[in-house]
Amino acid sequence: MSERIVLAYSGGLDTSVAIGWIAEETGREVVAVAVDVGQGGEDLEVIRKRALDCGAVEAAVADARDEFAEGFCLPALRANALYMDRYPLVSALSRPLIVKHLAEAARAHGASTVAHGCTGKGNDQVRFEVGVGALAPDLDVIAPVRDFAWTREKAIAWAEERSLPIDVNKRSPYSIDQNVWGRAVETGFLEDIWNGPIEDVYSYTANPAEPREPDEVVVGFEAGVPVTLDGQKVSVLQAIEQLNQRAGGQGIGRLDMVEDRLVGIKSREVYEAPGAIALITAHQELENVTLEREQARFKRQVEQRWGELVYDGLWFSPLRRSLDAFVDTTQEHVTGEIRMTLHGGRAVPTGRRSAQSLYDFNLATYDEGDLFDQSLAKGFVQLWGLPSKIAAKRDLG
Amino acid sequence: MSERIVLAYSGGLDTSVAIGWIAEETGREVVAVAVDVGQGGEDLEVIRKRALDCGAVEAAVADARDEFAEGFCLPALRANALYMDRYPLVSALSRPLIVKHLAEAARAHGASTVAHGCTGKGNDQVRFEVGVGALAPDLDVIAPVRDFAWTREKAIAWAEERSLPIDVNKRSPYSIDQNVWGRAVETGFLEDIWNGPIEDVYSYTANPAEPREPDEVVVGFEAGVPVTLDGQKVSVLQAIEQLNQRAGGQGIGRLDMVEDRLVGIKSREVYEAPGAIALITAHQELENVTLEREQARFKRQVEQRWGELVYDGLWFSPLRRSLDAFVDTTQEHVTGEIRMTLHGGRAVPTGRRSAQSLYDFNLATYDEGDLFDQSLAKGFVQLWGLPSKIAAKRDLG
Amino acid sequence: MSERIVLAYSGGLDTSVAIGWIAEETGREVVAVAVDVGQGGEDLEVIRKRALDCGAVEAAVADARDEFAEGFCLPALRANALYMDRYPLVSALSRPLIVKHLAEAARAHGASTVAHGCTGKGNDQVRFEVGVGALAPDLDVIAPVRDFAWTREKAIAWAEERSLPIDVNKRSPYSIDQNVWGRAVETGFLEDIWNGPIEDVYSYTANPAEPREPDEVVVGFEAGVPVTLDGQKVSVLQAIEQLNQRAGGQGIGRLDMVEDRLVGIKSREVYEAPGAIALITAHQELENVTLEREQARFKRQVEQRWGELVYDGLWFSPLRRSLDAFVDTTQEHVTGEIRMTLHGGRAVPTGRRSAQSLYDFNLATYDEGDLFDQSLAKGFVQLWGLPSKIAAKRDLG
Amino acid sequence: MSERIVLAYSGGLDTSVAIGWIAEETGREVVAVAVDVGQGGEDLEVIRKRALDCGAVEAAVADARDEFAEGFCLPALRANALYMDRYPLVSALSRPLIVKHLAEAARAHGASTVAHGCTGKGNDQVRFEVGVGALAPDLDVIAPVRDFAWTREKAIAWAEERSLPIDVNKRSPYSIDQNVWGRAVETGFLEDIWNGPIEDVYSYTANPAEPREPDEVVVGFEAGVPVTLDGQKVSVLQAIEQLNQRAGGQGIGRLDMVEDRLVGIKSREVYEAPGAIALITAHQELENVTLEREQARFKRQVEQRWGELVYDGLWFSPLRRSLDAFVDTTQEHVTGEIRMTLHGGRAVPTGRRSAQSLYDFNLATYDEGDLFDQSLAKGFVQLWGLPSKIAAKRDLG
Repeated sequence: MSERIVLAYSGGLDTSVAIGWIAEETGREVVAVAVDVGQGGEDLEVIRKRALDCGAVEAAVADARDEFAEGFCLPALRANALYMDRYPLVSALSRPLIVKHLAEAARAHGASTVAHGCTGKGNDQVRFEVGVGALAPDLDVIAPVRDFAWTREKAIAWAEERSLPIDVNKRSPYSIDQNVWGRAVETGFLEDIWNGPIEDVYSYTANPAEPREPDEVVVGFEAGVPVTLDGQKVSVLQAIEQLNQRAGGQGIGRLDMVEDRLVGIKSREVYEAPGAIALITAHQELENVTLEREQARFKRQVEQRWGELVYDGLWFSPLRRSLDAFVDTTQEHVTGEIRMTLHGGRAVPTGRRSAQSLYDFNLATYDEGDLFDQSLAKGFVQLWGLPSKIAAKRDLG
Repeated sequence: MSERIVLAYSGGLDTSVAIGWIAEETGREVVAVAVDVGQGGEDLEVIRKRALDCGAVEAAVADARDEFAEGFCLPALRANALYMDRYPLVSALSRPLIVKHLAEAARAHGASTVAHGCTGKGNDQVRFEVGVGALAPDLDVIAPVRDFAWTREKAIAWAEERSLPIDVNKRSPYSIDQNVWGRAVETGFLEDIWNGPIEDVYSYTANPAEPREPDEVVVGFEAGVPVTLDGQKVSVLQAIEQLNQRAGGQGIGRLDMVEDRLVGIKSREVYEAPGAIALITAHQELENVTLEREQARFKRQVEQRWGELVYDGLWFSPLRRSLDAFVDTTQEHVTGEIRMTLHGGRAVPTGRRSAQSLYDFNLATYDEGDLFDQSLAKGFVQLWGLPSKIAAKRDLG
Repeated sequence: MSERIVLAYSGGLDTSVAIGWIAEETGREVVAVAVDVGQGGEDLEVIRKRALDCGAVEAAVADARDEFAEGFCLPALRANALYMDRYPLVSALSRPLIVKHLAEAARAHGASTVAHGCTGKGNDQVRFEVGVGALAPDLDVIAPVRDFAWTREKAIAWAEERSLPIDVNKRSPYSIDQNVWGRAVETGFLEDIWNGPIEDVYSYTANPAEPREPDEVVVGFEAGVPVTLDGQKVSVLQAIEQLNQRAGGQGIGRLDMVEDRLVGIKSREVYEAPGAIALITAHQELENVTLEREQARFKRQVEQRWGELVYDGLWFSPLRRSLDAFVDTTQEHVTGEIRMTLHGGRAVPTGRRSAQSLYDFNLATYDEGDLFDQSLAKGFVQLWGLPSKIAAKRDLG
Repeated sequence: MSERIVLAYSGGLDTSVAIGWIAEETGREVVAVAVDVGQGGEDLEVIRKRALDCGAVEAAVADARDEFAEGFCLPALRANALYMDRYPLVSALSRPLIVKHLAEAARAHGASTVAHGCTGKGNDQVRFEVGVGALAPDLDVIAPVRDFAWTREKAIAWAEERSLPIDVNKRSPYSIDQNVWGRAVETGFLEDIWNGPIEDVYSYTANPAEPREPDEVVVGFEAGVPVTLDGQKVSVLQAIEQLNQRAGGQGIGRLDMVEDRLVGIKSREVYEAPGAIALITAHQELENVTLEREQARFKRQVEQRWGELVYDGLWFSPLRRSLDAFVDTTQEHVTGEIRMTLHGGRAVPTGRRSAQSLYDFNLATYDEGDLFDQSLAKGFVQLWGLPSKIAAKRDLG
């Protein structure tokens, strides 16, 4: 068996061409690996056949949708992960899963190298290569687009010369990455950050401005895991998929932002993540009801760092595991139901109920039954304010 | 001149009764102080006369709307202050301003004591008393509702006995605090956290679910200060007021949450803050365009602490001044314009332009003119991932 | 069985008097509970008898030294817990353990109330009462010294009137709290913060200024737990005790500081903690060798919060458990040996060896065998500095 | 005038050879720039002449000791900057100052490129290049040692061939960087991290183990700036220099640690920083006396980030300026005196006095004159513990 290269294969033009190109350049056999993370589109079997037709010595496809939902989207949900308080880490979550499959395929097929199709100015190259380094530090990585300055034009010419079974004309004006957790869109006219997105950009979400009837959903969680929708048992994957439909149908989860990439530049990004945003919204409100105050306050810092770390390609790092250990302990009591209205681009919690609630009606109420002992407040207020009072005596003196 | 007591006066039943009650209990003269922070409602002169009619020896009213907007709302905007990532600190911002006026009135009128009408289970007592302690540590504070277990029923009886010029029947089912930055509503049926709010609860915002035409606004900032709306010069107060109208007219800024009070309990709160939410949304996006990455990341921690601190009644504390110093330096380049669509309860940025932008088209574009040197990326990625790669070699070994 | 009160009993004057005084005041039976946390001094059996002689209906004593070392000192060591970067939380660690024993005794003896002898201006009242609230929220707490303004003079008079078997003249000029993790001393002349401590203040440590031979020790850790001293197996308790002797004999661990109490005032404190400081020093250096960089950086924030939280009496809080979960995951590889010189008041690491080391000689060396690929550095440096370079172009422009 | 290159010149072998080598390789004129940051050693004029003798077309030397002390060491002192809680950032502080002089020299001499002699595996390359990028983003940087794999052996051969006026045999076994803030030493035998340092390694500090008389010093600060030693006015530079002598004479400030470099590896470092450690120790204790608690707590996070940022080469970044703004506001009241004993390797505060003190004897004392109102404590403790009590009721239930 010759030394092989495992290629992260999407079925599209660039990676289809890469199969043959890498084989020619390196003289080594190429194994194509495609992973279904809920991106939709073509059947995995079609993709597998195309890889072989394009010259792959083997082609492996994997339905990793449940693994993705449970092992990657769920930790993000429990961490309410929103990079820059906005972006639910769509691509940043799928890359480590793909890396895991690549590393396993490399072991299975005796490959010493993996290849990916990322450019040199994005975040995904970091996520791929740092991930490979952390899961399989002995593997080499090649990145033809980046390291050999490979352009789309070159790819098309290469494909036409060799009559590869790819429709090179089916070019979308958009550069898209999508999975069950969301969808990212880049395109030329949005690189002018004064331009607004047009409806054509969107695919997971309906136009929130169009009049339609509101939808109401009750999301049930157990220990921070979404387990029911309107009382029906669902898997994590089903919860996301069904809310992609229902929240997406109400135009929820559109994002348009300027974002700080790890490679040092700012970029303009448009995202859609209806299920992710609806679930995070419900989860945050259930945490408001069930987490103790100081734990909740520190968790926000943990959440911010979690989002930065995963965005920055450090999923497989010791810190992510430690942050997850923190988050896991906070989720023990995040059990209960959140009722939300889905409408007009907004997921709005309107009710919450939980046997684990820390909201105590008898302490909170201003009506009869009030058990809160107001006589304690004066001493509390006095000592709470004592440090700033002492400082004030000095500063005003 | 006898020793006087300065009372924070709202014009409502409780503080109207308090005037006479405090006078009777303490044998001292009561000076009523009312501050207009944009709460709307009655004319200040009407309020002033009522205070005198209820027995105040003097009554001072102040239009502090511009002072509130510039000295309190603006720092909150620059800090993107959202307690628990949601609540824009409506009451928490007005209390320190009122305290400032109370302390000044105490000096002016030779009073040694101030009084407020807060209960013993809310946050506002803390904000009043810690504020007084920090601004005028020599003043005493009395809180009849809390310290003398004073109830509404007692107040009504007291008012009727003495024929005070107050309509004791005009009782709202809602407990409301409002100012130009927003409006807070509590009421009995919302103390059951499974109940959703009804339309009757809201006053600053129209129903977002009703069909209407979208509004589009361009907010211009200079150094983090909103200075224009659609190109027209505005003061900070005008910016908030006009966006209260326009964003409120589109149903923007409604909040319904369970919140952690400083006194140790969770409470259910409904807020409306159309102008605040629209301005913070625009400001955040302009920061995305104009702040350097590491500065922006640390600023999020500063913002969280700022919100907690002000919520917790520590406006007049050394830490708030230090956090503000941090924030101020970040705002130097937050200059430019954000175009937003206001519609259906959402304020959505669709365009940004700034002479201070750090978004560099030539580094970001994937089209012609790309100046980003992709050959630098490999080294970056390798060294960025080196710590987790070294750890992986150990951990997998 | 009448309703009983469980009293945290130390054997000293105040709590001896409290037994009878509480019984008289409340008409209830008092159960005395004394816990050995390594404070030394009298035999537990002597203390037990004194409690009975003073009127306790029952007296329970517990040797909790191993429990204290493993359940309280060890988490503090793994968190490198130093409040205000100095104080290793001596009393703050023993209080929750004592609370645990009190709560268990209350259950065992059918008591509905616990009592402690703390004053109203220290931290320990918080640790006792918040701890009781968290472990046994149904129990009441009474604090005679604080709530009944009980003074030492009153206690002496009370003891003499009733001829209690206590030597009321054996009064130390020092107020001392000590356990195996360290010793805290307060005294009148140190309340003038310009006065330095005198040798008489110290008991756990020899004078570091006296000439003596250095000592060298090798501390071995497994997963963050000290397990050997100079190659000899030790329990956590033995590690602390032996280092109290050896490091104490070299004058290590003396601390003299002004500290921020939770009740809002600053106080002057003198501490001795030879074993704690020696162990934390060794542990920190072993972490330097075995923790990945980003994990270590965030752990510092966790450590700070851990120290504040435990100082502030929140040992039994959800956040402490979550912080511990974070810390636990970081300790998995903190295995190896640190060689330290103990001398002249300093514990100085001079060598470290670990099979779990992330220090890689071949990457670090400047001599032959260097495997670090310096060609990667240029790209790294360029992209690392890109955000500040882009900002500079704007700011200088 | 031909296009010139400005070289950071130390006077040593490597950069002396670099002058001619760069000239030959690039065909451009080399301007040598040497900056005195208190590293001692040769006279600046000797260094200047050597640069010219080695072929520099111009040689500029600058005594930047006061600028370094006031502009770089002082902010570090006010931030109590200790990377990894240990290292006072000796080299990390001098690099940005040198960069500033290089950039100014490049402007003055019409150079479009700067050059430095750093290797590709250290932190200093980052500090140089990111600094240049931030101060003069138009300048190019060359790094012969890194980019042309230049070795010491090559340098010696090159120097001998051309008979450069350098003593190539005067080779120290140590790689040293020093300035007035401290001294860093690396050497082959210390790359084995089990080996302890030998006395020969040290130059700024006497052996702390040798018996000698203690020294006592009173350091006076005004607004966080050291202004007196034992009552004598000093400049910042003088304060550091005199304490380098006095604390160094007592063996204070030796550090031996394994450290996380920005380029992803761990390295073994030995430092001496007697003046820095003595000043930071005094400054921290004065802050304990004069900073309000919450401000002090958050400042620790700011300090940690400050240290990381400057260590990581981001001195000239927007975040450093914002962190400094925070720190500056905290220093307003850091005025007063700290008395320290210097002895046996330890700087130990024994007394503090300050007109700005927040330590209030009458609140702190347990003797007569106690003004602390203990009756306030019960309410405080109850509400402080309420969140964990409510959580406990749920969790134990």
